[in-house]
Amino acid sequence: MYLGVSAAAPSHDRGLPSILVEVDGVGYLFDVGEGTQARLQEARRSIHDIRAVFVTHMHGDHFFGLPGLLQFMTLSGRRKPLKIIGPKSLQDYILCSERVSGHARSYDIDFRRVVEGVVYSDENVVVEAFRVCHSTVAYGYKLYTRPRVHVDLEKLRRLGLKPGPYLSRLKRGETVVVDGRVVKPEDVLDIEPPSVKIVYTGDTRPCISTVNAARGATLLIHDATFSALHAEEAREKMHSTAREAGMVARLSGVECLALFHISARYRDTSLLVEEARWGGARCVYVAEPLMLHAIEV
Amino acid sequence: MYLGVSAAAPSHDRGLPSILVEVDGVGYLFDVGEGTQARLQEARRSIHDIRAVFVTHMHGDHFFGLPGLLQFMTLSGRRKPLKIIGPKSLQDYILCSERVSGHARSYDIDFRRVVEGVVYSDENVVVEAFRVCHSTVAYGYKLYTRPRVHVDLEKLRRLGLKPGPYLSRLKRGETVVVDGRVVKPEDVLDIEPPSVKIVYTGDTRPCISTVNAARGATLLIHDATFSALHAEEAREKMHSTAREAGMVARLSGVECLALFHISARYRDTSLLVEEARWGGARCVYVAEPLMLHAIEV
Repeated sequence: MYLGVSAAAPSHDRGLPSILVEVDGVGYLFDVGEGTQARLQEARRSIHDIRAVFVTHMHGDHFFGLPGLLQFMTLSGRRKPLKIIGPKSLQDYILCSERVSGHARSYDIDFRRVVEGVVYSDENVVVEAFRVCHSTVAYGYKLYTRPRVHVDLEKLRRLGLKPGPYLSRLKRGETVVVDGRVVKPEDVLDIEPPSVKIVYTGDTRPCISTVNAARGATLLIHDATFSALHAEEAREKMHSTAREAGMVARLSGVECLALFHISARYRDTSLLVEEARWGGARCVYVAEPLMLHAIEV
Repeated sequence: MYLGVSAAAPSHDRGLPSILVEVDGVGYLFDVGEGTQARLQEARRSIHDIRAVFVTHMHGDHFFGLPGLLQFMTLSGRRKPLKIIGPKSLQDYILCSERVSGHARSYDIDFRRVVEGVVYSDENVVVEAFRVCHSTVAYGYKLYTRPRVHVDLEKLRRLGLKPGPYLSRLKRGETVVVDGRVVKPEDVLDIEPPSVKIVYTGDTRPCISTVNAARGATLLIHDATFSALHAEEAREKMHSTAREAGMVARLSGVECLALFHISARYRDTSLLVEEARWGGARCVYVAEPLMLHAIEV
């Protein structure tokens, strides 16, 4: 669900960047623009269900809503720890806001500095970070459902093996020795690729790392601050046009493309969709606040 | 104009504390809860018109909207300096937010640490701070239009004085010597009392300093977080009930009482108005977002 979708300053009631991904009742929040806590309430989402928060980069419109959200969690009596992934200075900001406001948190924060690669995983999802191309150090995030792993009984039989506890180790990706013989996961396991893959760029120019991260994605949420009519400004400010977002969608062959981080100058956004459509994604739309994009697994 | 009026966390679309007082096209902002910049836009108020910001105390719901507002001013190309009055650690927070977000401000901030007494004055208004009774160091603010000062020509004649440049010095409150004789302002000037006096408490228990500050006020905006039904909780959390706000209004003889900082538990607030009404103010209401209280001068 999109909570806020506008660029830099809130405009046309679009709110500042924040996206809530929900998987089996667990919430993963990407960016926390000012006003996120209010939008979560409007959307009737419980902040207790948010397990992890991911921040793309340290421009204020992407994280100024975090201190209020964290304080609201205490007011609501949260006990469950919260995972926060973001640039190092985000942690400084959290500490500073808590110090000056005297906020005594009722729960623990497990902060992890974002680096490229896997930054988070739980029983539902894996989240990887990748560098994007912006005016400051910035990351995009790729979230995918855990690959499903099944034991192929036929392969097992052919190798003359019997089921045993070693299978759990294989499922965790380890290579094991059974009856004096080396067995790799792929020897006896079927690994289904992730059924859902969502990629969020944060702020970026069109970027080869995004193309790689988004290959075959179910949904690509891409910076589309400007129309191609303002391509020069997009280059200068290190953002993308809707047309460029369409190009990235085409190169990575995504199913759906959501245009995000829209400049206040575009009240009517149909032009942006027209521009991005040439990328050939099956669906192309401009993300709107409280818009829910449901994906069947 | 009330921008946000709710307690602690935004609820029922009430937004977090912020009040914009406008005098002759100049804006004075009291508290800056999260979401203030969005509400200013909704209200179609230009942030360029805001000349001074006053923060009552360092609980997050009263200032977490400041970093976003300050950044938005830069995005809008503000050049005029901004006056900010608040507790010392507010300045730390501003610096911290600017450092982590790389915000290079396009205008100067003139920060002044709040103490009791006059904290601000310009050609329109004077603002005084007074200590209130809350769980942390907290101030209320009294804003009044400048007393109008006229030269009483009759008094002047009786003292055998002629108009001269010394009158400007008298108007500034100085005592002067004219023709070897000591002249005080009250000897020749008529001083009309302020025509408008607005008092905003921020968060507080009913407090004698508020009664003193609000004596004869045009408008008292008072903490009314709770109903008298939850008086015990109000005492514990160092807030006021609507009934207590009414009592303060009665003791200070204000014209209008606005109930402010309403807890999320009260969706229907008519009960609060009923409670506060016994205070006998000519008008009593619950402040609502974007509600404009116009005062004739």
